[in-house]
Amino acid sequence: MPKISQKAIDIPASPIRKLTPYANQAKKSGKQVYHLNIGQPDIETPQVVIEAVQKFDQHVLEYSPSEGFESYRTKLADYYKSKDIPVNPEDIITTVGGSEALVFGFMTTCNPGDEIIIPEPFYANYNGFATFAGLNVVPITADIKNGFALPSIDEFEKKITTKTKAILICNPGNPTGYLYSKSELEQLRDLVLKHDLFLFADEVYREFCYQDTQPYSVLNLEGLENHAILIDSVSKRYSMCGARIGALISKNREVIHAALKFAQARLSPPTIEQIAAEAALQTPASYFEDVKQEYVTRRDILVDGLNQIEGVFCPKPSGAFYAVAQFPIDDADKFCQWLLEEFEYEGHTVMMAPATGFYASPNVGTNQVRLAYVLNQDALRHAVQCLEVALKQYPGRV
Amino acid sequence: MPKISQKAIDIPASPIRKLTPYANQAKKSGKQVYHLNIGQPDIETPQVVIEAVQKFDQHVLEYSPSEGFESYRTKLADYYKSKDIPVNPEDIITTVGGSEALVFGFMTTCNPGDEIIIPEPFYANYNGFATFAGLNVVPITADIKNGFALPSIDEFEKKITTKTKAILICNPGNPTGYLYSKSELEQLRDLVLKHDLFLFADEVYREFCYQDTQPYSVLNLEGLENHAILIDSVSKRYSMCGARIGALISKNREVIHAALKFAQARLSPPTIEQIAAEAALQTPASYFEDVKQEYVTRRDILVDGLNQIEGVFCPKPSGAFYAVAQFPIDDADKFCQWLLEEFEYEGHTVMMAPATGFYASPNVGTNQVRLAYVLNQDALRHAVQCLEVALKQYPGRV
Repeated sequence: MPKISQKAIDIPASPIRKLTPYANQAKKSGKQVYHLNIGQPDIETPQVVIEAVQKFDQHVLEYSPSEGFESYRTKLADYYKSKDIPVNPEDIITTVGGSEALVFGFMTTCNPGDEIIIPEPFYANYNGFATFAGLNVVPITADIKNGFALPSIDEFEKKITTKTKAILICNPGNPTGYLYSKSELEQLRDLVLKHDLFLFADEVYREFCYQDTQPYSVLNLEGLENHAILIDSVSKRYSMCGARIGALISKNREVIHAALKFAQARLSPPTIEQIAAEAALQTPASYFEDVKQEYVTRRDILVDGLNQIEGVFCPKPSGAFYAVAQFPIDDADKFCQWLLEEFEYEGHTVMMAPATGFYASPNVGTNQVRLAYVLNQDALRHAVQCLEVALKQYPGRV
Repeated sequence: MPKISQKAIDIPASPIRKLTPYANQAKKSGKQVYHLNIGQPDIETPQVVIEAVQKFDQHVLEYSPSEGFESYRTKLADYYKSKDIPVNPEDIITTVGGSEALVFGFMTTCNPGDEIIIPEPFYANYNGFATFAGLNVVPITADIKNGFALPSIDEFEKKITTKTKAILICNPGNPTGYLYSKSELEQLRDLVLKHDLFLFADEVYREFCYQDTQPYSVLNLEGLENHAILIDSVSKRYSMCGARIGALISKNREVIHAALKFAQARLSPPTIEQIAAEAALQTPASYFEDVKQEYVTRRDILVDGLNQIEGVFCPKPSGAFYAVAQFPIDDADKFCQWLLEEFEYEGHTVMMAPATGFYASPNVGTNQVRLAYVLNQDALRHAVQCLEVALKQYPGRV
């Protein structure tokens, strides 16, 4: 039997799915499981999106251009301009989700064996995309004590080697919910210019910012035009995760030209869901106001609730819909599994993602979990109650 | 300015797009261009597909499972069983087109620097997918004189090194239209077993076979369960290229398990178009009979017409909707460009893909072109007339 590749062995299984067999077992035994482990929002997709799909009436479901429909890229550029982010249609390659944008971005900028620095905890699938491209992820640990703010530039400097090719941030962050300030981004810009690196910014949670100030994009950084690569997606913005429409955006013509060649090899992004994404750009501003208000309320229920439990610490996120909390426990992997296997409160239990899957450094964040506040308010309240009771019963409490 | 990667420099631009600027220029000058260069069929997508899209009424456009909806994989397995190809739902990973299936397949089975043997001329994007995975393509030239039949096994043996990890065939073939016989496939099986290689078969044109015998699948080869990897797609089968729904299929559990990890990293294939692909499986048999009859007629118009032109040789394809023809010319790149820039007959000209883009060996097939018979019968007849006149006028005729 022929051997599979080293990459196939190395690529990590998804940490948010690791406990799925236990969750299935729990459900089989009759327990209700609150899924705080996944980022699938329950928020309704805007009606304009569903209507655009239902109106589809082409006779031949044809390929779209490899870089995406021009009409879509034109309207998408207008969306960015409305956010004071200077983007033109020709700066955009439409991709199959933010996932493909990252793969194209890594393939375009980095050689196998190159290093990419990422503040941790970070979105676990970055590991997978790095494996695709043969990159080594170099983590810099952000501290839960200061809400996962950007680690000091000194720490970055220490990690930079001749192999370092790029820095990747997620802003606002999954899993931390941290929103980088303009000053933090400017520090990154100076660092990137000094060492001639690329700066990737995954900004898919842009519309989920809970402060009064407008979030600052990597494309707002002056002088970084040839270094900045913006990763975006409609998945979370319009609650249309299943559409798989994302974008790689850069002012660097060489990057766009090369990424287009990767895009041409795979022919095109999906046609119907691209039409849906174009329609999504008509979503009324009131939709986002309502959604934002809902998430703020949910965040406060979850985070304030957790912080009232003795021994729990959860910094309040400024964006996205995740929080990382620290529990008074021996080991989050064990605790999360125990919740599914052993625990039950009023017929319910809670599924969370152990934070170890979001750290590349070994033995870091072992008492932390990621929680996604994508359930309704009552469910979140009850989930917090479950956790309070669970922490009293859990044998591994410290 | 930071440097882009070597892969970004190496990945070839698509050969079927190379002449697009000249085609655009020709159109601007008022010429009608017959597009025989691309594989975008004009055949209508089955009505059941369009209706399924129009009926979409979920409130949240959610992720699907990374391996694809279970209902879709179950029905897809039934489709294969109806073709006497033994496939179970758990053998299938639903992918974003056949393109992603090939990328996952290459990543799963081959290490960077490994070699994959491919009979040429071959689908040009295989080069791109090989670049993605860092593989080296080793071509074996098939001969136009015998219709691009499988090169002798001796030729394969000569190319096998310690780096060889897999063989890839396209059956029926793009660009050749050649359909491998059972005997040819059995020879490949014996070779693959002898050297413990993987055998990839891209069978996306399965429904376009114009002989009485049923096409033979790589999964029909006994004893090859752990070596065979089937690549499939709904794009051509149901004229729904824009859906981007494909599949990687294997009986090798290790391959499927690893490919699933790659699939999980990119989350999921598109939801709506997967629903459309599931509906496509209800397409009545009469649809394929009609389409097949239409393609046979088109093929005969094109290929018989070409062979009546002095100095032209075009083997008659048994499948797919492409043909490779040899012209009495100095250089197909120059000829194809000349057709667009200099030539016009009754207000029309023809766009074709020079075959050099489908050969990995240098200086092979320089007087060959690929033609896709995806236009209606009248257009094809007139395109052949255009070519006949053009060959009389072309200054590089030999």
